[in-house]
Amino acid sequence: THTFGPVLHQHLRYNPLRDTWVLVSAHRMKRPWAGQVEKPPEEHVPRHDPHNPLCPGNTRANGEINPDYDSTFLFENDFPALQPDAPDPGSGQHPLFQSRAARGVCKVMCFHPWSDVTLPLMKKEEVVKVIDKWAELVEELGSTYPWVQIFENKGAMMGCSNPHPHCQVWASNFLPNEPALSDRCQRAFHQKHGEPLLLQYAKQEAEKKERVVVETSDWLAVVPYWATWPYQTLLLPRRHVLRINDLTAEEREGLADIMRRLLTKYDNLFEISFPYSMGWHGAPTGPHLTEDNSHWQLHAHYYPPLLRSATVKKFMVGYEMLAQEQRDLTPEQAAEKLRNLSEEHYKTRDN
Amino acid sequence: THTFGPVLHQHLRYNPLRDTWVLVSAHRMKRPWAGQVEKPPEEHVPRHDPHNPLCPGNTRANGEINPDYDSTFLFENDFPALQPDAPDPGSGQHPLFQSRAARGVCKVMCFHPWSDVTLPLMKKEEVVKVIDKWAELVEELGSTYPWVQIFENKGAMMGCSNPHPHCQVWASNFLPNEPALSDRCQRAFHQKHGEPLLLQYAKQEAEKKERVVVETSDWLAVVPYWATWPYQTLLLPRRHVLRINDLTAEEREGLADIMRRLLTKYDNLFEISFPYSMGWHGAPTGPHLTEDNSHWQLHAHYYPPLLRSATVKKFMVGYEMLAQEQRDLTPEQAAEKLRNLSEEHYKTRDN
Ligand SMILES: O=P(O)(O)O[C@H]1O[C@H](CO)[C@@H](O)[C@H](O)[C@H]1O
Ligand SMILES: O=P(O)(O)O[C@H]1O[C@H](CO)[C@@H](O)[C@H](O)[C@H]1O
Repeated sequence: THTFGPVLHQHLRYNPLRDTWVLVSAHRMKRPWAGQVEKPPEEHVPRHDPHNPLCPGNTRANGEINPDYDSTFLFENDFPALQPDAPDPGSGQHPLFQSRAARGVCKVMCFHPWSDVTLPLMKKEEVVKVIDKWAELVEELGSTYPWVQIFENKGAMMGCSNPHPHCQVWASNFLPNEPALSDRCQRAFHQKHGEPLLLQYAKQEAEKKERVVVETSDWLAVVPYWATWPYQTLLLPRRHVLRINDLTAEEREGLADIMRRLLTKYDNLFEISFPYSMGWHGAPTGPHLTEDNSHWQLHAHYYPPLLRSATVKKFMVGYEMLAQEQRDLTPEQAAEKLRNLSEEHYKTRDN
Repeated sequence: THTFGPVLHQHLRYNPLRDTWVLVSAHRMKRPWAGQVEKPPEEHVPRHDPHNPLCPGNTRANGEINPDYDSTFLFENDFPALQPDAPDPGSGQHPLFQSRAARGVCKVMCFHPWSDVTLPLMKKEEVVKVIDKWAELVEELGSTYPWVQIFENKGAMMGCSNPHPHCQVWASNFLPNEPALSDRCQRAFHQKHGEPLLLQYAKQEAEKKERVVVETSDWLAVVPYWATWPYQTLLLPRRHVLRINDLTAEEREGLADIMRRLLTKYDNLFEISFPYSMGWHGAPTGPHLTEDNSHWQLHAHYYPPLLRSATVKKFMVGYEMLAQEQRDLTPEQAAEKLRNLSEEHYKTRDN
């Protein structure tokens, strides 16, 4: 009874990308759930809705008419959190009342002209077009902005207010908290161990196998050892790559392939269009382009909220907000579940 | 057009308790909301439900029968995330696969025998009893455990699965991430400025007034300058107090009074039982009891999820999870709204 077993015994795990710990209490999955039940994600979205501002040919909030696009489509967010020209709050501030100028741009990018598809249901070539556009945006906005955050909020549960497949790109004149922290952690590891943190990590995981969800010759998707969200995954290339625009044409194809396979597994888990927030982290840009960023490795984080079923999510609330994040199944259990799921999407399976 | 105005121009604000920044984009309140709408909180809870495991005289999951309690009632969580006897995962670990033993206890504390009351609807003497119990628990569990986290998840929106008024207390053999960070920040400020961070902050806010929600001779409730949640508040004593068990009888009465006033305003904001997660932070305990903790100041954080109405919350998703937290109204706007609300609860108002 006193031999440690990660499924039986709560323990802490270290997140080396954030220098924090997560409490893993897998035995908590036994508790019954009498709390809030979510609305399951909408499964029948019309291909074209004349009132949806993201569809081709429709009019947006600002009166602009969308082109009849047939691939990706990029436009400025009509209600941007970051604008290019905000004035500076000024200096000489009290240490407890510090503010700073925030400038930037917010863009929206539709993945496809149809509202009833998502990335795993799109053709591989169509997903490659999305990746090419991501790379273009990092190249373009990253020429001046220190940080370009590509992210996708998928599903109403993740605050997404439009079912049309799309992501957002917010570029800023500052390095936000999360990448700043990740930069510090990766730099310290590199200095100490002479190797990029995530390259070493990918090698270890590819050998250990127990947290691998999908792998190809170029890419790896794992439930990280320190995952906080129940089915969180980390997606990264095996080669040392700093930024998404450094990927070769072949690696972009490989990425489209592994994304489709990973996201199909996600959808198959509860047979719903799986909600998540995801985003890319790569080496900082703008003024950082001329610095040594060899401690960085490109990667994407997927943070899905669901825990038990299509309608019961994990609540990151009291203890998690005030003290420390806590999870109710081990990363190895989550990885095994995902790994064993079919790579054929439940919506396209015949029978 | 180029004079800085916090309501007009997005900017960053510094959180000195966490050493992070928040993006304030108040102009975003103008965007229409077409996203997820929450179920409004349950307004008609029966006073006694024979099937509710938290009510007096009822049977809990483990077969134990609750006493016929008439004030607060404390018991061990039937599905604890922390147990006292978990074995150690062992040492000699790879730097990217680090784990540690986690040991502790999880308790649940009912505030009142009735299911249809909440703290702002309880009598002041009844709230004092809750505070006395909190102090007792910090004294008792804190004699050995380095951290005792008192927290309340209120409302189904915050993952609370039982409408009966209650909170939780999780004590651990480790200092969790959030208090560890807050400890570092308060210590650094104290070293540099020779004064506890939050004492200096409380003085400044009491003078400036624009972020004060309620104040008494002993206590202050403000929307902090760096608030991330729309109606987040910080509640703290004006005197230098390290832990909740150091409060005098008079200060406990004062706390009961200001809690009732603050929570009444919260409920009055949208005329619903306002959901939130809240918790207490004070100087660490156990082995830290003999250390110099004079940089600490006792305080409570309230994190309510709602933004626009009883059914539209703020989503902390893509950009917030991957890059940085963002808010859609200024802390001063939130404070003004709360300050101007009545201190008579909408449920007890006659007419
Ligand atoms: O302990 P409860 O109320 O069952 O559970 C709730 O609070 C816990 C502590 O914040 C969270 O870990 C759970 O996700 C949440 O549902
Ligand atoms: O920009 P959207 O999709 O309207 O808004 C959504 O994503 C943003 C970025 O993560 C969040 O700040 C909002 O709270 C969320 O509702």
